[in-house]
Parts: sequence; structure tokens; C-alpha cells
Amino acid sequence: MNLPQHVRLVEVGPRDGLQNEKQPISVADKVRLVDELSAAGLGYIEVGSFVSPKWVPQMAGSAEVFAQIQRKAGVVYGALTPNMQGFEAAVAAGVKEVAVFAAASEAFSQKNINCSISDSLQRFVPIMDAAKQHGISVRGYVSCVLGCPYEGEVAPQQVASVAAELFAMGCYEVSLGDTIGTGTAGATRRLFEVCAGKIPRDKLGGHFHDTYGQALANVYASLLEGISVFDSSVAGLGGCPYAKGATGNVATEDVLYLLNGLGIDTGIDMDQLIAAGQRICNVLGKPNGSRVARARQT
Amino acid sequence: MNLPQHVRLVEVGPRDGLQNEKQPISVADKVRLVDELSAAGLGYIEVGSFVSPKWVPQMAGSAEVFAQIQRKAGVVYGALTPNMQGFEAAVAAGVKEVAVFAAASEAFSQKNINCSISDSLQRFVPIMDAAKQHGISVRGYVSCVLGCPYEGEVAPQQVASVAAELFAMGCYEVSLGDTIGTGTAGATRRLFEVCAGKIPRDKLGGHFHDTYGQALANVYASLLEGISVFDSSVAGLGGCPYAKGATGNVATEDVLYLLNGLGIDTGIDMDQLIAAGQRICNVLGKPNGSRVARARQT
Repeated sequence: MNLPQHVRLVEVGPRDGLQNEKQPISVADKVRLVDELSAAGLGYIEVGSFVSPKWVPQMAGSAEVFAQIQRKAGVVYGALTPNMQGFEAAVAAGVKEVAVFAAASEAFSQKNINCSISDSLQRFVPIMDAAKQHGISVRGYVSCVLGCPYEGEVAPQQVASVAAELFAMGCYEVSLGDTIGTGTAGATRRLFEVCAGKIPRDKLGGHFHDTYGQALANVYASLLEGISVFDSSVAGLGGCPYAKGATGNVATEDVLYLLNGLGIDTGIDMDQLIAAGQRICNVLGKPNGSRVARARQT
Repeated sequence: MNLPQHVRLVEVGPRDGLQNEKQPISVADKVRLVDELSAAGLGYIEVGSFVSPKWVPQMAGSAEVFAQIQRKAGVVYGALTPNMQGFEAAVAAGVKEVAVFAAASEAFSQKNINCSISDSLQRFVPIMDAAKQHGISVRGYVSCVLGCPYEGEVAPQQVASVAAELFAMGCYEVSLGDTIGTGTAGATRRLFEVCAGKIPRDKLGGHFHDTYGQALANVYASLLEGISVFDSSVAGLGGCPYAKGATGNVATEDVLYLLNGLGIDTGIDMDQLIAAGQRICNVLGKPNGSRVARARQT
């Protein structure tokens, strides 16, 4: 076993998580969540998304959230910017790091953002240029890397190709997302093996959903492939472990528990993390989606 | 990666699962569950436990269940027999395979069965003798193999020692149980490495609880150690994924999903398995504890 000694967790709860919760919450609650997450030791927090609140009411007020958070030294506060308009709004809000996303599945790209993968990548060119001018780092996401709700299986080569384009365009890191959570450990390993042929392993991240309960096994499989960056969502925000149709973001607490058990350093304090997760669940009025958090509360 | 080509799943839902559900169910419902599980392709079903119904009311009627199930050729129908009285009752009920259990933790043994590990093993001697006379196979369980609620960490050497004693006494296979679900992938691998020094790997099984969400990662870690027998509980019976204090048996469906994804043969039909799990959840009036089952129902 040659596991990484250090892992960086990218906390996507305030963005990917809250975006998929039915109920929008206040700017004050978002700010508190972000500040509690940075206090817990998270080094990267995706704070919000610069999109039209008509389409994503949960992400309304992202500029206000950025204005009000207590910026902690060394912490990256990222924002999702699906288009140039969003990018400009992010810059105006003082954002220093943004993220863009593409799909590995042609059908998903068409249904989700109404254009081909190639067109979606082209749309990022001006964002990448502007980001360079402003000295803003850009992280890339690829979705549907281990399965597509419309196409079924997705070839690792296809994922690698999209990821390599994002990397070549200037994304400093590309996160591979199992959007529908259907991937298993062997497929996860093959995916990273193939992608590592085009992008250095330390520029790849894993983003797993626990819809089929496979997320932690996939994280472990990824670690065995030398992957050391994982996206996760505090309290499993964005997935509902109790209902049908859960999108199922893996809970940061559960990933941290695995990493702690493996003796891998993250710099994150479990107790503070659990407290932050429970607080936001109370705000949302929903049960905690982290098994570790639930087990600790007994 | 040198994964097993075939895995044998030991279905413990009707025993370990139902025993930990608050509400006892009827003999007819148990019979139907066992028959549906054998129809789904499970090759080993732990049907019940021969203990006093005063202590474990959920296991009342195990003899009737054994009398009424449709025995399918090639399927092993096991029973837990904690003592000689239980063993004799099992024999009278026509049981052909039994299981005995010991703890890897001294404190747990004292608190759970009120005697030392050594004494508990001594109590099995007459059972092993009688089993030999009756041509009955005996499976061994060791609990608390990756942590004890009273002692905390449990040394792998201690687990190996107890497992080796059970094996030497005549248990044809020893299942190592992470009773409190605190184990992680690295500890799981070390545990099997150490135990494999005393018992052949193909005589060892893994029994994981998902209390901290680690069960499938631990199953995958075990597979990487060449372990090819796992206990699991249909619909996660015995654990409640929605409540505090979940004991958290890993769901058979979720293990099967992982194994299917890895291309490992089990002979089990997922759809029939999910149907059996959902039916028993309806009887119990509780939500399904399998993530795969919930995802498939959307």
C-alpha cells in the first residue's frame, strides 16, 4: 500500500450541497457555515455559485456571502462560474478562485446545459483568458465520469479526453465526478489509471456521490491510485439519505473518518466539522446525512 | 489487483438482522423472507437463533421457521447456538449447520456474555464434540475485531488468537466482525494480514457494520487481502440508517452492487434480493436500509 500522506478535501457543501437542497437559506446562515468550515480546518471551501437566482434560487446572495465571510489565511474560497457573466460577477465580488464544469457524456451535456461537450469547453475559453488576466485560479469539474443517467456507461478515455482539455486550457486541477453514484471501486481505479496517462495524478481529484453506498470504497480505491484530492459535502448536504432520488454527496465527516483511520493528514478537526454540519442540518430542518455524525450523536 | 473471482455472501438478515429489530415478526413472515432469499440465490442463510425467547423474543419460533422453509438444494440454512441447550434444540429442529461466537475483547465478553473469552471458548467444546457426532458443521464468529465499545482498540494479534482457537476447535470458517463499525480500510487489511498468519485466508470471512459508513470500503479492502466470504444483511436489517444508535449491518444489496461492479461472481439476483428486502421492510414498517434499494426505487 502506497497511500498519500496528505489529502486535501475540497468542501463543496455550501455550493454543490446547498444548491441541491430544496429550501434556500439566508446569507447569514451561509456565512456562518463557511466560517465554521474554515475554523474546522478545511483548506478549500466552495462558497457559492454565480448563476441567475431565477434558475438556482439556492445560490442567490453568493456575492453577499463572499463579502461577509471571515477570510482565514491560507483558505481558498471558490465559486462556480458557469459562464462569462457569472465569472464577471465573481470577480466583482472579490473571488480569487473559480470553477468551471463540463460533462463526460454528450447526452448529459445536451440535457443539462443544452450544448455539446465541445461547445461547453469553447465557452470557457474567454473565462480562462479573463482569469489569467485577473490572476484567478480555475478548477475544472467533469461530471458523469462513471456513468450517465442517459447513456449508461461512459468510457474512461472519454473522461480523460475532456479532463485533458480542461487541464490544457489552464485548469490547475480537474475533479472527476461520479454524478449519479453508480461507480464501483474497480471502475474508479481504471478511470484514474487512464486519466493519469494524460494528466499528472496530483492534478486529479475525485468527487463521489453515495447514492449506491459506494463513495467511500471509491475514495479508498482512488487513494490506492495515488489520488490525494477529494470533494465532499459536510453532513452530506445535497443528498438526502432518507428519501428516494437522493443525489448523495459523500459526507465530509465520513471521508475524514476514513482518512483519519488510514493515518492520512488533512488538518481538519472532526468535532468542529461535525458541529458545523449539525448546525446547518438544524437550519435546514433535515436529518444529518453523515453516518459518522449520527453515530457520534448517540 | 488480485481480487477473488467468486465471493460467498452469508445472509445474516433473518438472524443478526431481525434479532436487532425492536419488533418481533411472525414465523410466516420469517419463512417467506428465508425462502425469498434462497430464491434470490443466497447460498448461506442464517435462519435463526436457538436462545431463550425470554432474552431474545425476536428469535422465538426458530424451530418452526426451520420446519416450514422450503429447503433449496445447495443452500446452507444455519442457526446460532450460543450454548449446549441451544445446540440440542437446533439438532431437534433438523439444523445441519450452526454458528458459535466469541469476542476478541475481554471487556466485551464479560459485559455481553458474562464470562471471559477463555471460558466462552471452553463452553463450545461440548458443542463441537456433539456437532462432530451429528455431522453438523460449525461456523465461528469473532466480535469486536476492529474495536470494542469498552476497551477501544483491539490488537489484531488478539483477534487472530481467538479466531485460531475457534478454527482449531473445529470451526470450518471464522467470520471476523466489526461489531461497532469503527474499523477503517487500513486496519481491516492489517487484521486479515495478521490473522492469515494463523488461519488460511479462505477460511476467514468479514462481517462489517456500516455505523460509520465504512463497511463497503472495508469489504473492498478485505477483497484486496484475498478474503472471499462476507456476512451481510438484506435491506441492512438490524441497523437503522435513520436513527441514532444504529448497529448498522451492511446491506447485502450494497455489497452485491460492489461485487457486481468488480465483476465478481456471487450467483445472486439483484432484483429478487431487493424485492425480498423491501417486503421485509414493509412488514417491519421501516425504511429500507440499503442505499442501492433506495436508489433503485426512485
